[in-house]
Amino acid sequence: MDIGILGGTGPAGKAVAARLASIGMSVAIGSRSAERGEQTAAELCEKWASHKLDLHGADNEAACAADLVVVATPWDGVFSTVAGLTDHLEGKVVISMANALFKVGSDMEAVVPARGSLCVAVQNAAPKALVSGAFHHLPARGLANLEHSLDADVLVCSDHQSATKATIELVDRIPGCRGIDAGSLSQAAAIEAFTAVLIGVNIRTRSHASIRLTGLRTETE
Amino acid sequence: MDIGILGGTGPAGKAVAARLASIGMSVAIGSRSAERGEQTAAELCEKWASHKLDLHGADNEAACAADLVVVATPWDGVFSTVAGLTDHLEGKVVISMANALFKVGSDMEAVVPARGSLCVAVQNAAPKALVSGAFHHLPARGLANLEHSLDADVLVCSDHQSATKATIELVDRIPGCRGIDAGSLSQAAAIEAFTAVLIGVNIRTRSHASIRLTGLRTETE
Repeated sequence: MDIGILGGTGPAGKAVAARLASIGMSVAIGSRSAERGEQTAAELCEKWASHKLDLHGADNEAACAADLVVVATPWDGVFSTVAGLTDHLEGKVVISMANALFKVGSDMEAVVPARGSLCVAVQNAAPKALVSGAFHHLPARGLANLEHSLDADVLVCSDHQSATKATIELVDRIPGCRGIDAGSLSQAAAIEAFTAVLIGVNIRTRSHASIRLTGLRTETE
Repeated sequence: MDIGILGGTGPAGKAVAARLASIGMSVAIGSRSAERGEQTAAELCEKWASHKLDLHGADNEAACAADLVVVATPWDGVFSTVAGLTDHLEGKVVISMANALFKVGSDMEAVVPARGSLCVAVQNAAPKALVSGAFHHLPARGLANLEHSLDADVLVCSDHQSATKATIELVDRIPGCRGIDAGSLSQAAAIEAFTAVLIGVNIRTRSHASIRLTGLRTETE
């Protein structure tokens, strides 16, 4: 599967690009400049040489040509990035992973974006895209480190069943991750905000903790 | 330790009362009417006769005489209940466990209370109390069923270190639960809202799932 990352040169973008390439995806690292995307792709390929990652660079517009697109810009760039690519995202599954967080003292606090959540902002900016939210609670450093095995449930929300399904399938391919249908985009505000709590705990305990749901009844039961 | 539950006759109150009594606490089930509190206490003692629960009824004011107070009213009654008891809560550790949730179709959505979170509303209503937030993510039914063993991390937030400490100590006494310092009351909004996501997942999967943090570095490491 082809994956395009918008804003793939930042910490979140590099982390998700490396992780998805490590499970055999062909990943385009998008950036405002294709050159920066290429540079980041080359760096990651070199860093994880033994993984033989299928990574290349692109501008954000070209990254939209992939089967599935991940928006990984810093949160305050999410809306404007997507709004500039509306036509290119029509009919695509677009995963929003950003969290609106603000540093207050040594702690992180969640702020409420104008449209309630960044997932909803992405869906509004690209109304014909099939937007889902995912990957919010995975610490970027753990995600980026391919020697680090993940142990996390990934909450997936969307207003489109096909996007929920495609996103959960992608998540389930990542060793140590389980995708969980967390409902509609109305849940994104709470999912995004909760990241502040996790980051705070991680700062205080110097951990890279994620969450798992315990006691979840699965389909096979 | 003596524990007083404000609004102890509702589902959340009964659940937390039974669970805390099951670990040897002496629990006063507070209600607007002491008689209803007594009735609920008697019902719970009979239901869990083999556990020999130390439960009794009280009006909410008398329940405030306990060492530690839990606010367990429905969320839209939290502020007015606490505001009527301000003087009685001075210097006490007061645990807020309610979540501002609204049913939309078959799903639960988090709404933002006027003061950002119910924990902050409680702290504002009782400024000299040592308010903490806890127990938000435990499904009431699992908490209430003493035959059901819990498997959950309980996120604790407070602006008072002594309240965080006392609340975590209480949580840690409950088999299957681990208290985690989740920071200041600024985190309560996100913790409370996230309950909507968990309840939604539980509705869809007919589960009573809670959360655990994985990869958390503990003090002994």
